[in-house]
Amino acid sequence: MAVSVAILGASGYAGAELLRLLAGHAEVEVTVATADSQQGKKVGELYPSLAPSYPELRFDSLSSGPVNRADVIFSALPHGESMHILPRLQNNLIIDLGSDFRLKNAELYPEFYERAHVCPDQLSLWSYGLPELFREEIVESKRIASPGCYATAIILALAPLVREGLIEDTIVVDAISGTSGAGRGARPGLHFAHVYEDIRAYKIGAHQHTAEVEQSLNRLSPTQRVMVSVTPHLAPMTRGIHATCSAQLVKSCSSQEISQLFTASYQYEPFVVVSDLPPGTKEVRGSNWVRIFPTVDPRTQRVIVVSVLDNLVKGAAGQAIQNMNIALGFSENLGLSNTGLYP
Amino acid sequence: MAVSVAILGASGYAGAELLRLLAGHAEVEVTVATADSQQGKKVGELYPSLAPSYPELRFDSLSSGPVNRADVIFSALPHGESMHILPRLQNNLIIDLGSDFRLKNAELYPEFYERAHVCPDQLSLWSYGLPELFREEIVESKRIASPGCYATAIILALAPLVREGLIEDTIVVDAISGTSGAGRGARPGLHFAHVYEDIRAYKIGAHQHTAEVEQSLNRLSPTQRVMVSVTPHLAPMTRGIHATCSAQLVKSCSSQEISQLFTASYQYEPFVVVSDLPPGTKEVRGSNWVRIFPTVDPRTQRVIVVSVLDNLVKGAAGQAIQNMNIALGFSENLGLSNTGLYP
Amino acid sequence: MAVSVAILGASGYAGAELLRLLAGHAEVEVTVATADSQQGKKVGELYPSLAPSYPELRFDSLSSGPVNRADVIFSALPHGESMHILPRLQNNLIIDLGSDFRLKNAELYPEFYERAHVCPDQLSLWSYGLPELFREEIVESKRIASPGCYATAIILALAPLVREGLIEDTIVVDAISGTSGAGRGARPGLHFAHVYEDIRAYKIGAHQHTAEVEQSLNRLSPTQRVMVSVTPHLAPMTRGIHATCSAQLVKSCSSQEISQLFTASYQYEPFVVVSDLPPGTKEVRGSNWVRIFPTVDPRTQRVIVVSVLDNLVKGAAGQAIQNMNIALGFSENLGLSNTGLYP
Amino acid sequence: MAVSVAILGASGYAGAELLRLLAGHAEVEVTVATADSQQGKKVGELYPSLAPSYPELRFDSLSSGPVNRADVIFSALPHGESMHILPRLQNNLIIDLGSDFRLKNAELYPEFYERAHVCPDQLSLWSYGLPELFREEIVESKRIASPGCYATAIILALAPLVREGLIEDTIVVDAISGTSGAGRGARPGLHFAHVYEDIRAYKIGAHQHTAEVEQSLNRLSPTQRVMVSVTPHLAPMTRGIHATCSAQLVKSCSSQEISQLFTASYQYEPFVVVSDLPPGTKEVRGSNWVRIFPTVDPRTQRVIVVSVLDNLVKGAAGQAIQNMNIALGFSENLGLSNTGLYP
Repeated sequence: MAVSVAILGASGYAGAELLRLLAGHAEVEVTVATADSQQGKKVGELYPSLAPSYPELRFDSLSSGPVNRADVIFSALPHGESMHILPRLQNNLIIDLGSDFRLKNAELYPEFYERAHVCPDQLSLWSYGLPELFREEIVESKRIASPGCYATAIILALAPLVREGLIEDTIVVDAISGTSGAGRGARPGLHFAHVYEDIRAYKIGAHQHTAEVEQSLNRLSPTQRVMVSVTPHLAPMTRGIHATCSAQLVKSCSSQEISQLFTASYQYEPFVVVSDLPPGTKEVRGSNWVRIFPTVDPRTQRVIVVSVLDNLVKGAAGQAIQNMNIALGFSENLGLSNTGLYP
Repeated sequence: MAVSVAILGASGYAGAELLRLLAGHAEVEVTVATADSQQGKKVGELYPSLAPSYPELRFDSLSSGPVNRADVIFSALPHGESMHILPRLQNNLIIDLGSDFRLKNAELYPEFYERAHVCPDQLSLWSYGLPELFREEIVESKRIASPGCYATAIILALAPLVREGLIEDTIVVDAISGTSGAGRGARPGLHFAHVYEDIRAYKIGAHQHTAEVEQSLNRLSPTQRVMVSVTPHLAPMTRGIHATCSAQLVKSCSSQEISQLFTASYQYEPFVVVSDLPPGTKEVRGSNWVRIFPTVDPRTQRVIVVSVLDNLVKGAAGQAIQNMNIALGFSENLGLSNTGLYP
Repeated sequence: MAVSVAILGASGYAGAELLRLLAGHAEVEVTVATADSQQGKKVGELYPSLAPSYPELRFDSLSSGPVNRADVIFSALPHGESMHILPRLQNNLIIDLGSDFRLKNAELYPEFYERAHVCPDQLSLWSYGLPELFREEIVESKRIASPGCYATAIILALAPLVREGLIEDTIVVDAISGTSGAGRGARPGLHFAHVYEDIRAYKIGAHQHTAEVEQSLNRLSPTQRVMVSVTPHLAPMTRGIHATCSAQLVKSCSSQEISQLFTASYQYEPFVVVSDLPPGTKEVRGSNWVRIFPTVDPRTQRVIVVSVLDNLVKGAAGQAIQNMNIALGFSENLGLSNTGLYP
Repeated sequence: MAVSVAILGASGYAGAELLRLLAGHAEVEVTVATADSQQGKKVGELYPSLAPSYPELRFDSLSSGPVNRADVIFSALPHGESMHILPRLQNNLIIDLGSDFRLKNAELYPEFYERAHVCPDQLSLWSYGLPELFREEIVESKRIASPGCYATAIILALAPLVREGLIEDTIVVDAISGTSGAGRGARPGLHFAHVYEDIRAYKIGAHQHTAEVEQSLNRLSPTQRVMVSVTPHLAPMTRGIHATCSAQLVKSCSSQEISQLFTASYQYEPFVVVSDLPPGTKEVRGSNWVRIFPTVDPRTQRVIVVSVLDNLVKGAAGQAIQNMNIALGFSENLGLSNTGLYP
């Protein structure tokens, strides 16, 4: 009998992506999808691409009964809402795609999210759902905070270097996102005529994912305190995160040595590939894969690591499903084996 | 035991899409993929998105032994090549994604393809693989010519009207394609800097798919000879066909009546949906679905039918697989149930 | 001494384009730009590209004094507002880029604009500012209604055929627009992630520009009443109108004959070129040019005419300036001689 | 009497942009445009947008007589060709848009361009045409090597910091380019279907512009030797360079202090604006402007400077014209005062 799933905040892009991917998951059934603003509307009216897979499913209210009866909750509620709602739920497994339970240190919420956390005592109950680094914690967890899209790309690009103590502080990251990362809501900055033929940086040094990147890297770092300086950019595309991470090596290394380190680090990972060439975001579009390319600039002895992922899959819905698979003991790639869409 | 599949001309976009979709097909296994220009290279080197699904598969030569031993051949060879190669093959089932065996009247080849057919006697052996109209012929067929992308969109948009004798000649079609329809080869007209922010018509009144559209519609037409005047356009996008078909009604009809006719015509079809609103190409991207919206312009008593599909799926690889499923007695949507990628 | 210009509704895309083009116009100076929602903000804050040309200009209120003192008013106010405001102004020359004074028959406003006209007696005071057809009326006019973007493209594509009585009713038009035609306001349908990789039709048979197309063509038609059935489409690009017009010829004509007719019709026009090949929208981006390609489909004896223009230039701001130049006796291409931006 | 101009290699994007901009330059006339591959073809056939401005100009051969008689030569020949051709020319002023005469140290050519320089003794005769830093040398120069597009963006973003000795080595630069920077030639990597929805890095740490960036910055640096580690990226857009430069401050500075330094540095520059917000590439599209935004990440005490320009204007043709204006004593913004195209 299928595991029943409720998706909270299902009308946004991450929610829709959960619906898309779970339609192909053999062990679960989506029984309820909430979206207060779309209540009563069929999922397929808002997302015609989902109509064939969900001919009858309608958006429901957050307070509907089936939410409580679901075995698994995926929350794609906006940042700041989850912390009010999720602690009240008693479901067996709750996976939050938002940021409200990602940081262990509650004091970072005011700094990076401009609001105090309403239930800091809850933070220790949640595991950080980045399987490649913290799989053991996910296995036993009932409450999983799935990482942010930028954070996933950056942490995976840097973890092998930080763990080995190979790089100096401060790490410089320039990351580029497609527009779907900003959500489905209409805003002037997301108008097609504005974004098309435009690249621009935003929240320089102040992006909220910085906190979870540093939290994870410092867990791995043997000695020093790691800091990252992140400049995010918005690019004229829909999906994709491209992170370019640069750090000074503490000792001379060749590109080949670094590549071997990465290959060894991720050799058993079902969704990470260490690439021979700088990867493009379209190589992973629609799939749960991360492609990583590390290299050394021999002139400056800096290591540069490029990573790409689909912000709605490995950066959101796919990773959340991967976390569910781990927590429930399913095969880790169940529902996630689809090949990316190229071209 | 899995049905073995050989893909000829597998390095092009249609070939790669066959590989993508067949990776998720439960009953088949791709045993060989030919591409003379890429011989020896791993599939995943040319298409990194395919690497996880085909870690070991390498492009092989057309004359390789496994081609002959495959149960099913999909040919994505360029137009004009298939006619030289496919008649020599003895495989159980051959499905050609190209145009060389689509037309029954060999005299149309010089007119629409600028070359005479080399084996006109073979044409009668091939069925035209448009399941929604000619499924019975496909069931019994060993040789299937899968329709063109424009042709599929246009024929399905017009079939219910032509069959009922509801419209006057000449039918006007404006159709728009993304660039992947032009193939993977680099050409000045496909340079990103040229196509971006550009729409332009081409082959006005002379597109080769016109012949198969008229061939199919005339099979359905109870009386008159149907002609279509097609203007194709290239749009700055990668995937998608959008066809806008316009014809004078022979008698007064409401939009509702026409919509009901279409709904009835396609009610049992696994991949056609009659839409309530004009559909966008992105609603079907990556999926085998066709969305059709018929309406009447009451001022002019013209019926306008819009249809959209993904040129690489329902317009190429997906439809070819649908044909295979029918011919081999599989469930028709096997390997094709994935949900489209939106946004 | 420079002619002083006031732009009403200057914060929208058409208003910004007036500012861009008038910055290079030798005989005029923009003295006021109104935008109630942006009052007090510098033009260059909203449009950084305009900052170098207008370092000090700030958006002002519609009721500001300088509006009344301006020699020339360009109104880029939303449809439905101009009719309330422009009749009260006493300026020497008023050019409306909106639709409120384009139609002579007031009864068409409820049909095509879903509102009754508030001052139908004013309609006869306005000339329709399409210079290529009605230049003599513009020369003497103090009140000019500048045509819509689709309308300009369609009328110019069909005028030579209609004037000669060469085509049968009903004319079929499929027209494609970039997103800037929908204005600067944020809406879900204009979200980058929605529009990208998407083509879709809208307002099929019901677009409001249909009325002005028919009004103009019927002025030219020697006998019959002309009707057009227009299907507009939104494409993933920012600027550009592409119109594909199709009509049955009343007598056999060759492509060459039709091309000669068009060349002769537009030989003295400063902004129309009859092209040898189907033109792309990017060929005219940023310029006031229209490129037209007529051809005959010999199989069906239909004439197909393709035309392209930049919706913000020849379809809005550029044409309004062309009208001003004519009305004030300037050289017609003053401020409009800039070359389009390609690639 | 107009200054006569010859453009060598005029069929590429930089050549076409020279034609576009020079059409609006009051003091010069383009008398010859060479392009061996397009010889005899009208400029307007290859670039329809240029047809109105150059109705009669045809591409000529490089050896044509008018080349020698031109007062000014702009060379947009491919890298590696200029060094063979330009030293033989006797024209009064030669401006090379390529890289063959940019580096003073001939030994850097094998390292960064994979070929030895054929006339290293000529290098000292050329000035490096970056007016904002080296205007005095340009005034007196007869031979000007115009900087690369990335180089211009990066050098201008870093010059005030390096000159004041405010930052530590190594400087990290991530730069993003649209596809027009790769030239007009068709290549698989520039196919629309490949680039669309894709971001990818290339030539990591090895881009040839690195050499001229370091050469210029080291001329400015009071003490230390400056190195930069550059990662270029290709983005799905046509025009635009976006550079994000990051360096460790040697002493604590606020964003405001840094901003004031930049404002003071560029206050008299006709084409540089220090922005209050991170600028987008579309803010400068089609214009010769550079927009620069410096800021300090207070957590890490790194200074991040973002700069944007149009690679074909300030990054190529526009800067070359600016250099000509300086060298010939024209007003520096002659022919360059057009406003950028937005949206």
